[in-house]
Amino acid sequence: MTHKIAILGASGYTGAELVRLIATHPSFEIAALSGDRKAGQSMASVYPHLRHMGLPDLARIEDIDFAGIDMVFCALPHATSQAVIPGLPDQVKIVDLSADFRLRDPGAYQKWYGKPHAALEMQSQAVYGLTEFYRDEIKDARFVAGTGCNAATGLFSLLPLVKAGVVDLDDIIMDLKAATSGAGRSSKEQLLLSELYDSAKPYSLGGTHRHLGEFDQELSKAAGREVRVMFSPHLLPATRGIVLTSYVKGEAEAVHGALEAAYADEVFIHVLPMGEVPQMKDVRASNYCHIGVVGDRISGRATIVATLDNLTKGSSGQAIQNANLMLGLDETAGLLAAPVFP
Amino acid sequence: MTHKIAILGASGYTGAELVRLIATHPSFEIAALSGDRKAGQSMASVYPHLRHMGLPDLARIEDIDFAGIDMVFCALPHATSQAVIPGLPDQVKIVDLSADFRLRDPGAYQKWYGKPHAALEMQSQAVYGLTEFYRDEIKDARFVAGTGCNAATGLFSLLPLVKAGVVDLDDIIMDLKAATSGAGRSSKEQLLLSELYDSAKPYSLGGTHRHLGEFDQELSKAAGREVRVMFSPHLLPATRGIVLTSYVKGEAEAVHGALEAAYADEVFIHVLPMGEVPQMKDVRASNYCHIGVVGDRISGRATIVATLDNLTKGSSGQAIQNANLMLGLDETAGLLAAPVFP
Amino acid sequence: MTHKIAILGASGYTGAELVRLIATHPSFEIAALSGDRKAGQSMASVYPHLRHMGLPDLARIEDIDFAGIDMVFCALPHATSQAVIPGLPDQVKIVDLSADFRLRDPGAYQKWYGKPHAALEMQSQAVYGLTEFYRDEIKDARFVAGTGCNAATGLFSLLPLVKAGVVDLDDIIMDLKAATSGAGRSSKEQLLLSELYDSAKPYSLGGTHRHLGEFDQELSKAAGREVRVMFSPHLLPATRGIVLTSYVKGEAEAVHGALEAAYADEVFIHVLPMGEVPQMKDVRASNYCHIGVVGDRISGRATIVATLDNLTKGSSGQAIQNANLMLGLDETAGLLAAPVFP
Amino acid sequence: MTHKIAILGASGYTGAELVRLIATHPSFEIAALSGDRKAGQSMASVYPHLRHMGLPDLARIEDIDFAGIDMVFCALPHATSQAVIPGLPDQVKIVDLSADFRLRDPGAYQKWYGKPHAALEMQSQAVYGLTEFYRDEIKDARFVAGTGCNAATGLFSLLPLVKAGVVDLDDIIMDLKAATSGAGRSSKEQLLLSELYDSAKPYSLGGTHRHLGEFDQELSKAAGREVRVMFSPHLLPATRGIVLTSYVKGEAEAVHGALEAAYADEVFIHVLPMGEVPQMKDVRASNYCHIGVVGDRISGRATIVATLDNLTKGSSGQAIQNANLMLGLDETAGLLAAPVFP
Repeated sequence: MTHKIAILGASGYTGAELVRLIATHPSFEIAALSGDRKAGQSMASVYPHLRHMGLPDLARIEDIDFAGIDMVFCALPHATSQAVIPGLPDQVKIVDLSADFRLRDPGAYQKWYGKPHAALEMQSQAVYGLTEFYRDEIKDARFVAGTGCNAATGLFSLLPLVKAGVVDLDDIIMDLKAATSGAGRSSKEQLLLSELYDSAKPYSLGGTHRHLGEFDQELSKAAGREVRVMFSPHLLPATRGIVLTSYVKGEAEAVHGALEAAYADEVFIHVLPMGEVPQMKDVRASNYCHIGVVGDRISGRATIVATLDNLTKGSSGQAIQNANLMLGLDETAGLLAAPVFP
Repeated sequence: MTHKIAILGASGYTGAELVRLIATHPSFEIAALSGDRKAGQSMASVYPHLRHMGLPDLARIEDIDFAGIDMVFCALPHATSQAVIPGLPDQVKIVDLSADFRLRDPGAYQKWYGKPHAALEMQSQAVYGLTEFYRDEIKDARFVAGTGCNAATGLFSLLPLVKAGVVDLDDIIMDLKAATSGAGRSSKEQLLLSELYDSAKPYSLGGTHRHLGEFDQELSKAAGREVRVMFSPHLLPATRGIVLTSYVKGEAEAVHGALEAAYADEVFIHVLPMGEVPQMKDVRASNYCHIGVVGDRISGRATIVATLDNLTKGSSGQAIQNANLMLGLDETAGLLAAPVFP
Repeated sequence: MTHKIAILGASGYTGAELVRLIATHPSFEIAALSGDRKAGQSMASVYPHLRHMGLPDLARIEDIDFAGIDMVFCALPHATSQAVIPGLPDQVKIVDLSADFRLRDPGAYQKWYGKPHAALEMQSQAVYGLTEFYRDEIKDARFVAGTGCNAATGLFSLLPLVKAGVVDLDDIIMDLKAATSGAGRSSKEQLLLSELYDSAKPYSLGGTHRHLGEFDQELSKAAGREVRVMFSPHLLPATRGIVLTSYVKGEAEAVHGALEAAYADEVFIHVLPMGEVPQMKDVRASNYCHIGVVGDRISGRATIVATLDNLTKGSSGQAIQNANLMLGLDETAGLLAAPVFP
Repeated sequence: MTHKIAILGASGYTGAELVRLIATHPSFEIAALSGDRKAGQSMASVYPHLRHMGLPDLARIEDIDFAGIDMVFCALPHATSQAVIPGLPDQVKIVDLSADFRLRDPGAYQKWYGKPHAALEMQSQAVYGLTEFYRDEIKDARFVAGTGCNAATGLFSLLPLVKAGVVDLDDIIMDLKAATSGAGRSSKEQLLLSELYDSAKPYSLGGTHRHLGEFDQELSKAAGREVRVMFSPHLLPATRGIVLTSYVKGEAEAVHGALEAAYADEVFIHVLPMGEVPQMKDVRASNYCHIGVVGDRISGRATIVATLDNLTKGSSGQAIQNANLMLGLDETAGLLAAPVFP
């Protein structure tokens, strides 16, 4: 059986990544693509790498006929999703890839995004799309809110440790290295090749990055008390991928054991043998996440290194994984391509 | 029906790329992997990105049991293939990815590779693996010799023009830009990131690059007379991909028409609208090849730009495409993944 | 004696490169910097790498007091220079780094830049700033128009050959590989790291690139007849530098000899031994230009590879070299820093 | 007055960087270059970017006449320096760039480098080459041992804080991002462009990196008690530069104040305004070091970001700065070139 798919915001990187993954999905068919600023253009002109797919042209959202659509992926810019999603017809299921519905508490949303939420009712229905931790809720959901790519990497690293009680909750530091596609196809000076190539640039330090809202929400929920972490992102000269180095106080063996136990049955999350760590490119363009743990010469300290592709497991791959569950398909459908190396 | 596959030389980049592609191939199963220098090691230790696949460890070739193997991909270093392939049992079909069996004329082999060929009988049986031009022979072959990645890019650009008689055969210039993976996983100073990053390095200029042997052979055959081209490769700070800019004397419209006609029914080769040209990343990690044609302000001149991924369409993807044909499968099986962009 | 310098357009890359070079110039002192869109900002906020220099803040051009200024470098965007330069006071000498005054023929300007020139009188006074070929005129000039960076690379490669009559004037092909800083600090989608990293992108093929106006002008002048070349630029994932591969019909030894003769006494242009070619990074961040020549297996053909840093020898270094001459200083003052490798 | 310089190990990156910097040094003259494996070769063949300098060919150390040499820079591989330096004649002053003489305690050397030190007497004479903290000793020294590049970055970040007592000595975490040139011109698989481009690779985690020996030594000395830090390096796709993100417990204002006070009179170390942080490229190819401090939403925490060029301020620039002091020259001679950006 084929499910008809609409992608809203197909002119952005997460939209294009959805199309790329659906190219080999066994039961998804792309029926509509929107891209307001580029409405009327062919996908081949916006993304020449998708030239061979025979895709529909980019349309305006209001010109899309949602009758017959089974699943809408909403890859619109942050703050736009909340204006569009409440108007979608009831029969469609929805996976949102924006930041609009990740935070359950309206106050938290306002704190991190600087204005009141415009679709509070939808917000209360959204299931947080971290598949490996919300699988049951996602299966039954009509509406799933995808996680931040950095948040996913951090939560995969830390949630099992918080739940297992093997780390000091008051002393967690996360140093993140991120490729540029996480910032989207936006023509900003700091994202120019000239500016960032042969460099590395810290940004949003000191507790100001918006994905902290997700860490606060999910780690506190898992701990049953308030948890606040330090989180420092750095932009790298790379296109895809995140490497997150987390510093915790706890026994490395216990940390490793908690991760191994949590992910023993997971297809996409692989915990490396004790003492080994992944590099960013080990999972490029795939839905896999690799996690490694190293002890330290200082006893009672451990370092956790996690890597995933921000556009795949961190965003569009996660979205398809969730859509598979929502539609009763095999969770891994269309997602088993091996990482691209070198 | 599942076909059992052995990959000889799985510790190199083309070997790893074969494994990556086979991960989602519907009817191939990897039964054996060789890697002489790394025999005994797990593939996860040699290529961590393949960690999830549950692959056999790397073995020595002499320890592989070829009974039950249907297809051998030979991704051994140049000059090694010719020592190994004659000893393979008769029931296996073989796709060689080395340079050993590309040149039909033993004299040409000796000229370009500097020593006599060691397996002349096998050489005479090898079919040149440029699928789109040797499809019928490949279907019936037991033994196919994969093309050089640069040669494939050039032949896709030029063969239709030579056959259609639309260009001056005595004035063809090919300026090639190549990523580093074409040079293999070899620890050479000139391939270090420190040496090539933020640079571009011409090499093997002046008619010395070995892939010229393939150009001479195939273009002369197509023309029915001797054809000699200029060919200048440049190494770029990039991991995968080739951009070939070819300069010809001929009418651009006729050039474009000849390419469109030649590839109208091809799945993997796409000719862009007149005047448009591809960039390297438009086909990354895919089996697609994009070709564009531009006229010039000087009448009677045309520029052709072709791009493919050296490890996929230029080598391992081509190998699987040929293996599919040799085994009676759909030619595109396992090869329809869309390019990875950005 | 110290010369007071004003830089108009200091917020762009060529402006910042002028400041960088002047940091160690023995007799230049920066007295004023303009940057209209960023007027009022400190240079440290616009270019943190210049933080230590104690520079004047960016001002609006109309707020600069040109009394006491000896030399104005005009690094304004193309089409802006011609509006500003005629209004500069008579006592200042001027080096323009824009494209506005490179073409002596108003008709050629209109053809390549799409509108009539707005300062025809100044245009007629401008000396073309290719130092090694216009040194005498530059010494006596009040106003020098810097060359295009691509044009400089091509003219260094070809002018001696045209003058010596050692190549076929009707069959010159130039394939250029360029880093992104040549496109300036402009937030365009195609210049994003995400778009170009791990890629190579041809652009302005077919005789449409504006620097062809300079090739037409200077090569025809040197030949005493009209010369038209093919010129194909490609954008690379690199920040600084140009590699130009030129294909000519002529004897390689004669080509090499003509280049050696032309540059025997030049400090900044180095002709490599016959058969050797440079890579882009051999001259990075320096005022040097390296040129190599290779013969071909096809007799009567030669390939010339030239490399320079587009921001230094191709633009701001050239500008300072010319300013040195105009002010009666040693031509090499402030320009002898060795290339940065790796 | 001109000082005659010999560089031992000129075929490595730190050797080539010494030559590059000396190209514009007002009073250094290169009299001899050694490169044992490449003895007899010209520097132009080993480092084409130095082609214009008219350098002596690479010689074997035993063939160098040290009579008349004033200063020897020893850029030999680790463990080689200690075999060579004791044999140098008494009249030469020496700056060693290897790791051989950085640790004052023979036991610490054996612990971190795995074998007993072979030149204990020389070791006891060596002054630790962190100029800004050992300036007086360096002025009077015959023999200075250059610091590790990572160690320099970390000590610039932390020494003032330890001395001022503004941070918790038992909770210092340093997450380092390093370019590949720090690993030298060594043909290792993990340093290939194919392997690291578009990636980021943690290495030597958990307290195993040798530069920890320097942290232990210098931080403990400054604190007057044992200090042990966590230190996690990551290799980036970049050629030059280090970004070090240090996490401390202390008041951000006090941290910032201690750094500002420590470096107020330093030419090469710049502390950014509170809340601002540098990127790697802000100091490329220069002798400058930029340091920024950010507070955190968690009170009592601060993040310090420091950046320097590992080959310049982290190694060869530092070496020349020390040599200037040892020879009674202006400390900044030859070192004031501005960073190269973009």
